[in-house]
Parts: sequence; C-alpha cells; structure tokens
Amino acid sequence: MVGNFQVRTDLALEARENYQDGDARIRGVRVEEKEDKEKEIYTTVVHIETENGAKAMGKPVGTYITLEARGLSDQDEDYHREISEEIARHLRQLIGEGEKTVLIVGLGNREVTPDALGPNVVNNLRITRHIIREFGKTAPGTEKENSVSAIVPGVMAQTGMETLEIIQGIVKETKPELVVVIDALAARSTRRLNRTIQITDTGINPGSGVGNHRQGINREILGIPVIAIGVPTVVDAATIVNDTMENLIEAMDQTENMQQLGGMLGTLNKAEKYELIQELISPHLNTMFVTPKDIDDTVKRLSYTISEGLNIVFCG
Amino acid sequence: MVGNFQVRTDLALEARENYQDGDARIRGVRVEEKEDKEKEIYTTVVHIETENGAKAMGKPVGTYITLEARGLSDQDEDYHREISEEIARHLRQLIGEGEKTVLIVGLGNREVTPDALGPNVVNNLRITRHIIREFGKTAPGTEKENSVSAIVPGVMAQTGMETLEIIQGIVKETKPELVVVIDALAARSTRRLNRTIQITDTGINPGSGVGNHRQGINREILGIPVIAIGVPTVVDAATIVNDTMENLIEAMDQTENMQQLGGMLGTLNKAEKYELIQELISPHLNTMFVTPKDIDDTVKRLSYTISEGLNIVFCG
Amino acid sequence: MVGNFQVRTDLALEARENYQDGDARIRGVRVEEKEDKEKEIYTTVVHIETENGAKAMGKPVGTYITLEARGLSDQDEDYHREISEEIARHLRQLIGEGEKTVLIVGLGNREVTPDALGPNVVNNLRITRHIIREFGKTAPGTEKENSVSAIVPGVMAQTGMETLEIIQGIVKETKPELVVVIDALAARSTRRLNRTIQITDTGINPGSGVGNHRQGINREILGIPVIAIGVPTVVDAATIVNDTMENLIEAMDQTENMQQLGGMLGTLNKAEKYELIQELISPHLNTMFVTPKDIDDTVKRLSYTISEGLNIVFCG
Amino acid sequence: MVGNFQVRTDLALEARENYQDGDARIRGVRVEEKEDKEKEIYTTVVHIETENGAKAMGKPVGTYITLEARGLSDQDEDYHREISEEIARHLRQLIGEGEKTVLIVGLGNREVTPDALGPNVVNNLRITRHIIREFGKTAPGTEKENSVSAIVPGVMAQTGMETLEIIQGIVKETKPELVVVIDALAARSTRRLNRTIQITDTGINPGSGVGNHRQGINREILGIPVIAIGVPTVVDAATIVNDTMENLIEAMDQTENMQQLGGMLGTLNKAEKYELIQELISPHLNTMFVTPKDIDDTVKRLSYTISEGLNIVFCG
Repeated sequence: MVGNFQVRTDLALEARENYQDGDARIRGVRVEEKEDKEKEIYTTVVHIETENGAKAMGKPVGTYITLEARGLSDQDEDYHREISEEIARHLRQLIGEGEKTVLIVGLGNREVTPDALGPNVVNNLRITRHIIREFGKTAPGTEKENSVSAIVPGVMAQTGMETLEIIQGIVKETKPELVVVIDALAARSTRRLNRTIQITDTGINPGSGVGNHRQGINREILGIPVIAIGVPTVVDAATIVNDTMENLIEAMDQTENMQQLGGMLGTLNKAEKYELIQELISPHLNTMFVTPKDIDDTVKRLSYTISEGLNIVFCG
Repeated sequence: MVGNFQVRTDLALEARENYQDGDARIRGVRVEEKEDKEKEIYTTVVHIETENGAKAMGKPVGTYITLEARGLSDQDEDYHREISEEIARHLRQLIGEGEKTVLIVGLGNREVTPDALGPNVVNNLRITRHIIREFGKTAPGTEKENSVSAIVPGVMAQTGMETLEIIQGIVKETKPELVVVIDALAARSTRRLNRTIQITDTGINPGSGVGNHRQGINREILGIPVIAIGVPTVVDAATIVNDTMENLIEAMDQTENMQQLGGMLGTLNKAEKYELIQELISPHLNTMFVTPKDIDDTVKRLSYTISEGLNIVFCG
Repeated sequence: MVGNFQVRTDLALEARENYQDGDARIRGVRVEEKEDKEKEIYTTVVHIETENGAKAMGKPVGTYITLEARGLSDQDEDYHREISEEIARHLRQLIGEGEKTVLIVGLGNREVTPDALGPNVVNNLRITRHIIREFGKTAPGTEKENSVSAIVPGVMAQTGMETLEIIQGIVKETKPELVVVIDALAARSTRRLNRTIQITDTGINPGSGVGNHRQGINREILGIPVIAIGVPTVVDAATIVNDTMENLIEAMDQTENMQQLGGMLGTLNKAEKYELIQELISPHLNTMFVTPKDIDDTVKRLSYTISEGLNIVFCG
Repeated sequence: MVGNFQVRTDLALEARENYQDGDARIRGVRVEEKEDKEKEIYTTVVHIETENGAKAMGKPVGTYITLEARGLSDQDEDYHREISEEIARHLRQLIGEGEKTVLIVGLGNREVTPDALGPNVVNNLRITRHIIREFGKTAPGTEKENSVSAIVPGVMAQTGMETLEIIQGIVKETKPELVVVIDALAARSTRRLNRTIQITDTGINPGSGVGNHRQGINREILGIPVIAIGVPTVVDAATIVNDTMENLIEAMDQTENMQQLGGMLGTLNKAEKYELIQELISPHLNTMFVTPKDIDDTVKRLSYTISEGLNIVFCG
C-alpha cells in the first residue's frame, strides 16, 4: 500500500477479503466456514498458520473465530442467549479443559458510547476470586470453581498510562493463568458494525481497537494465554471516504454516461488511486470515527450477550 | 437540489456559505461579522429578515448568532469563563430586560456521548423555581429573581413520545414566559465541530439536531419565545462523503495529470453531481454520524461553559 | 401519635403491623396471605375497603399487593424471571383485560443509587408508542399491541417542578389510558429492604417515596387509573433510632440486671415514649437515609426484574 | 472498649474527641488549631508523634490536617476555589519542594453515590504523564512539569482483587515517586458529613473508607510516600444508634421527670453501656450506612474542589 493511509480493520475476516481482491488463496492461511441456517449464525474460522500468512494478513499467527449474526442488533432475548452459548462454546475450545484463574479486562473508554463495550461487559460479570480466596472453592455460587477477577483500566487520556502497563502490573501481582480482553473494534465496512463478534487467541495487537492501542496485550508480552473478544462498533472516518472512492470507480465502469470518465480513473493503478484518495482526505478525519445513531442500545445489548457468554464458561 | 440527499447543516453560518458559492448576497439576509482578536472569538450574526431570505437559507426568519472560538476544545478555564460571559451577553440581547420565568430544556440522548450536550448542560444549572415558589423572591441565592426550571425529556426511542409533546405538556402546566432549548447539532464541516456555538431566537426546527427532530419547538408552536443554543458535535456520515467528492472535483482541476479527467467531471452540472454522489452513498450511512474520538472531554467542557452562561443570565 | 415525628413506611404491610401492636383486626381492612413454598414467595394482599380503614392505616382506600422474596437480592436469573412473572400476573389483575395505552413513569433521582430504581426500570422497557403511531399495530415486535410510552421526570432539585406538574402536563398532551409509576420506597424495617415489592392501584401519595413527594400522583388527580410499583431501598435514619429505642425498652424487660430500669421506661405510655425519642433524634437525621453498602448491585437487579414484569404484560 | 462494636471514625479529629471525654491531653499527640474567620475555614492539625499516641488514637504515627468549612456544601464557586487553594497549600507542605511523578488513585465505588468521591476526583484531573513521555517536559500545558497518572481501581466486589494488589502492581510497573489516594470516609458525627476534608501522610489504613479496606495503602507497604485525602460522606448506621443512646443518657440526666431513670443508666460504666448498645443493634445495621438525601450534589461539588486542589499543585 502506498503512503501512510491504511484502510484499517481489526477483523481477520475483512483482512482476508482485502487480500482476496486479487488472489483467492493465501499461503499459510486456512479458512473454515459454517452456516447455521436455523440460528442464522454464520461462523468463519481463520487460521493464520505461518509467518508468511501473518504478513499477508497483517495479523499475527493464531486462530480468529468470527460469528456473524444479523439478529445481534435486535431485542430478541432468546436469540441473544443462543449467541452467548456459541461464544461460550468457542471460548472453551480456545481455552481447553480444566479450571482456570482468569483476569478479564474491559478495554476502552466508558464515557464514549461505542468504546464502552469492554467496561460494560465487566459490569455484568460474575466476579468470584475474592469469594474463593475467602471461603474456598466450596463457596456458594462458584460451582465451576474458576477464579474470576476483572479490571476496567481506562484509556491513556484518563490514566496517563499505557493500558499494557496497568495490566502487566496487575498480572504480575495477582498471577492469573489466563487473560481475556474485551474491546470495541474498528471494521472496514459499516455493514459489519454491531453484527460481528471476533474471538481470537492472539490477544490485542498494536493499532487495534477504537482507541488504537500502541502496545500489544498478548501471550508474548504477558507470558500467559490472552484471548481477545471484540465487536466492531465504529468505522474509521477515512475508511468511509475510501469506500466511496472505490464505489465511484466501480460506478463509473457501470453507469452508462460516465464510462468514458470511469475508464479514465480506471487507468490509474492501485497505488495512484490511493495517492489520490489520500490527497482528498481531510486531516481532521484521522481523529474521527463513524458510528450508528442507536449505538447506545446496541452496545448495551452486545455487552450483555458477551458477559453472559463469559459467565457460562467460568461460572456455569 | 436534486433527489432526496441533502447536505445537512444546523448552522445558519454554513447555510449561508453553501449559498454563497454562486452568489455573494442573498436578499432578505443581513450579516454582521466581528472579530475579538484578544479573546480570539469570531462572531457572526445572521439576520434572516424576509420569507425570501428564509427560503434561500432553508432556515426560518430570525437572528442567528454564531461564536467561533478555537480555544473551546482546550482546557483553559479562564478562557471558558470569557465564552460563558459572551453567551450571557448575547442571550440578554435576545431575551430583553426584566425578570423572567424560564424553562430550560436539555434535548438529546444522555447515553450517546456527542448527543449528551443538552442533558449535561441541565446537570450544571442552578434551579430556582421550587425555591422561589416556597420561600418567595427573597430566598438566598436568588438575587436575580428569575425562576428557573429545567427538564431532560429524553429521545423518542426512550420515551415513545415526540419531544414536542413532552415540552408542550410541561409548558401548558407550568406556564413559563420563556423556553431555552439546548441541543447538539450537525455541522457540514468537521472543522466547525466543537468550536462553534449558535444562539438563535428561532428555536428548534424540523430535521435539526443530532437526533433529527420531526417537529419544531418554537414560538409559533409553543406561543412563547424559544431561544435555542446549539453546538455542532457531529457531521452526518453522508456529508463526509459529499465533501470528499467536492474535494475530488477540485483536486482534479488542480492536479496536473488529472486535468483532463477533472475537466470531465467538471462538466457535470450541480444536479448531475449530486445524482452521482447519491448513487455512491451506502444507505447505511444515513443512520450514521461522524464524531471525534475525544468527544467525551469536549462535550463535558462545552456543557459546563454553556450552563455557566445560563447561570450568569438567570442567577447572576 | 404525639409530636411531628412519624415512623414512616411506604408499605401497607408495615402500616398494618404498626397498628396490630395493640389490635389484631382493623375494621375496613381485609388481608389475604399466601405462601408459595417452592418459589419462596410470600404474598400479602391488603384491601383497604373503607375510609375508616384508610384512616387507621394512614393509606388511601385500595389494594396493596406485597411480594416478599428472600432471593430478590441474589443473582439467580431463573428466580428473577419467576418474580417477573408474578409481578406480571398481579399487574394484569389490577389492570384488567384488553389493550391499553400506558405511560410508565420512573420516579426518583438517577444520581442517588437507592433512589435510581424508577429511572433504571424505564431504561430496560420496550417502548412502542412511536412505532405503533408510525407503522400501526401490525408493526413487528408489538404483538401485544399495547402502546407503551415512558418518562423519567427527575426530582424537584433537578427540575424546579413538582413531579406531578410534569406528569400531568404529559398526560393531558398524550392521553394515555393508564399510568404506571415506579418508585423507590422507605421501609420501616431494614429486614424488608430490597426483598419486597409492593404493587398498588392507589398510585403515589404525599410523603411517600425516597424523595418524599409533596403531591399525590393518583387516579383522583390524573383522572385515569394509576398503578404504583415500589421497592423499599432505604429506611429513614430517624426510624433506625426509633427501632433501637424500642429494642432498648424490650431488652430492659428481659435483661436481668436492668429490669428495674426497664420497668421504669416501661411505665411511660406510647405518647411519652415518642416524646422522648423525638428529643433524642438529631435534627440532621431528618434529611438522611440508611441503605445497604451493596445497594448498587441490588437496585440494578431489582430494576431489571420489574422492567421484565412490565415487558411481559405490555409487550408479551 | 468492650466487645466487637466500635464506633468507627476515619477522622483523627474525631478519634481525639472520643478520647478527650475523660482526658484533655494525650501523650505523643500534638494538636494545632487555627481559624480563618474571613474564609470561615477551621483548620486542625493533629500530629501523632509516638507509638503511644498512635495506640491511644487508634491511628498510625503521622500528620492529619483537617479543614472544616461550612460552605463546602454550598454552591458558591469562589469559596470552593479558596478551599482548593487551601488543599494545595497543605499538600505542598506534606510533599515538599521539587517536581514529582505522581500516581493519583480514586478509591471507592463509582456506582454508589457517597462512595464515588475518589472516582469523581480522578475524572476532573489533568493527566500529563503520557504527554510528557511523548513530547518531553516542554509540552504545552505542562508548565509545572510534574508527571501525573491516575487510576480508578474499583472495589473488590467489582474486581475480585484487593485494591492494594492493583495499586501495588501499577506502582511496581510505572514507578511513581508519590501516591495520592482519594477516598470517601466514615465520620462519627452527621454534623461533619461533607464539611470536612482530611489530608494525611499516613495513607489509607485497614478498616477505613466507606468500603472498609482490608489492607493498608501506605508508605510502609508501597515503599514510597502515600498522601490520603478524604471527606466523610457517610456515618455507619450503628454509630447513629450509639449516638442516640448517648443522647438518651445525657437527656435523662437533664429532663426533669426522668432523672431517676437517667441516674440509673448513668450508673452503668462505659463498658456496660457499650454492652447494652451492642445488644440493641440489629446485625443488619453493620452492612448499612447513613447519608444525606442530597448526597449527589454534594459529592459532585466536593470532587471538583479536591481535583482543582490537585491540579493547582501538580499542573499549576
């Protein structure tokens, strides 16, 4: 890609689509797809298996599970319970058998509606670590005997600290066996907003999330497994503009009375097109995001669905 | 304008700029401009004086005062106090001399950060109506003897009611002499976001505000003067796309190796350009807005500045 | 009762217990009790049938249903669903058959944790009035075809208005057939806090609620049926002191080496005892309340249980 | 003191008053008092200088500065600025000259109004650490060149972790030179609620704060100076009852027709009185607190006053 403009996506699913424009298969990347027609859940598992695949995808080696479910934005409670169970099922596969002591981290800014997903999830969790430490594993309401702790670290503008510094300090002090981080993500397409849940064993990596983390929060750095659960709630403002440009080029090829014009733009190669787009994007846009007007309801509902998924896994 | 796409702006200032592209003066519209270089406040007063002017501007007859102040997004407290005093000065001119019983309405959704301006302003107001009713006008802390009441009606998705229904009910019941509504607005340009305050005696009119009110809240409907104070905190997502298209056309005229192409797009007339844009805009975008990532801090600060302005006027 | 000190309770159940100290049956008051041992729900229905009964109880003529459920403070979701269904069942009996247009009012102050019950309930309601008005009764998700609107009016210190003024204005403007108000109540005993739900067809009456409403919100005043749902979340600070005094007197009768002393206090009649208590109560206490430390969790859970009860009745 | 009932106070000022009932001076405790009549601020500095003094007071060796200011509950902004400056002056004396890197910790539960003091203070702080780390000490808005970071760790029911574990982890990771903790306190007397600010160099010690910390957060444990700033916002429910009993005994000595009775209770010694009180206190009360009804406004105002004091010291 030319210049410093990047169409950002935190979804492995979309990273793969980007790539596929020209090339159907990427070496080192294996994809499984499954549709549950009854539940209307479309599941894609992207396995990035080699460094080559990682480079092509712009994402680290690991497993990326994506659930797409139209109904995620709706109010149907029973449907949400099914999604929670799907989340629980995938989490169990990534985590493996046996009891765990887990630290759940709600990333993001609770004061900015689309970035409040992580903090909201933590609000609904069943926290057991202090109970188990005081009363032992036979304490009531702790059948599953996992020790669950949680933190909402806040964002750098609120704390002056990198999120990683806070988490690393707490991990060293409380020694959990597993970290699960929840974060609001940026998608490439507005159609995926609030309808997609990504679960990965690669943790959080630099540049991801609504707040664009500068440092990774992953197994390499923390020394223990890190699962990340994310939902795209925003699209970068610059991405919207980029999409329109691509629509323009496409439209020009199709719309009758503009073919001549389209043909012309079409003669630009990819690099030239991006250069053009970059010139057009107002620098203001880089600090802005696009989000739906009903984001308050959606984030509330999604947070609840994810926290229930976690409660099923850890508190049965 | 062709089709049903409209570049929306709630600022009279921007409505005028739209128009001026082709034509420097609009009949029935009078504009005063003033720059306070020391305070770095740029004030524009747009007087729409005739129905002709109203039609040209797409806004009702009345006075629109716009304060533009770069520092509005900064943390400098003394500067904010000066802006509060500017707001107070303009409010007094619109309201006139003498004591008033006033109902202040904080429009918008307190759960959506850029739409929470109105509710936040109400949180910081000095409310006196109940004190004056109980202890009379000599009650402590009520030197100015204005009776101030306030309401945060919520948005239609929360209440099932038009905001107007709620306000009209309360106005009929409590009979204030004046209504002041505070609302987050949509601007046309990201450069104006969070740096501009508009004060008008025309109230709120259909289609304005982040939440796009369907009915007006104005003197005509309520039967008493309605002042509206607004700050643009979002840009419609579709507007961003439109801007890029215009940048594209402009860029094409200037960039050397694209002049030929630019010339071609340039031959489209305005109607044809809008038709083109309309085709390119994803229908999803109509329910989306663009807002800066630090909107939480900005809305907090702006709300405080406006509520202090109101407190100066009504509680001195 | 002597003097202006009153042991306040918003629960008819407790009003009756007060009275019963001396007298087992009150004329004009009929009581039904029922225990569901499996669900651990204890239901008391107090029918105040005559003005005489109303005077004796200090509450207006009407029906007061009280659900006592130990588990209300626990996290068991299935249990809460059962309580929601119980609430729905009783509501249906009070309301009667047929579709309704209903306005649900969340009384109280959302900024004070134990008083936030009403506002929290409204946050979880399914609001349908605006959908039905736009798309008609066949709109999706509105099988039950009730039109539900809702408002969180705020408290007098925030609005400068009596809650009644706001509600009356909205009722006149939007003409619902039924009003349901939700409010946090004051109990007489700490043991009832957060474990008791009262449903009554008498609405809200002066002096009730955490915020002590000065005017009633009831059928007499609004002209349409008013159902009130309340949960005691606080005890007046003065009541705690009163209870201790009564414990003191009782203890003295029992504790060996204090019988002589107890006997003495015992010779005071009720009026004299209250006079004594009144002298002892610091005037500060009248503006204070007592509430449990985990009130945040409890109010969150109770609000959800009540809103689900309302959703079952009105949105099926 | 007999039994396990303790009249709890987090104020050294009140600990001293307790003791003084019998004895005017405590060895190892030195007290300075000062009244600023113009500003209506009453300042008491309690120096606990020896282990003997610490034992007598039930508080560790160190300096306890208490500002009492009637106006703290009022809305007068200029007055609050003066208090902020007083706080700043005392903080500077405890901290000493020179630049510092400081971590400010907002203890308490943001969901429970009287316990939200610490989290609210952090909301209004100017955070600079990340700016200094990125742009160096010449960054704009950082004249004072202190590096300020902040955290709201939440309470154990939310995190499953001791507050100390979280803070210790962050301190080890980010290595500040100084920690300032803000916490809501419990007072012994309702008259001191929301009118008193205590600043101490002894940090937080077990059993203090609204949430009753189980472990200390102090220099001994963290290895760096820990300043604690606290405001009493609640009184333990059991304390209210205790106070009434003491009022009872006193009243009995004075009220004519009860002297005989009073004389009798009066013959109980302190230990016997506490035994009596303990029997009377309902076990429920131990998990409850007493707080004023307008606690939302008060905590908002106090938080702002304290955060401004901190901003003056660290960000000039």
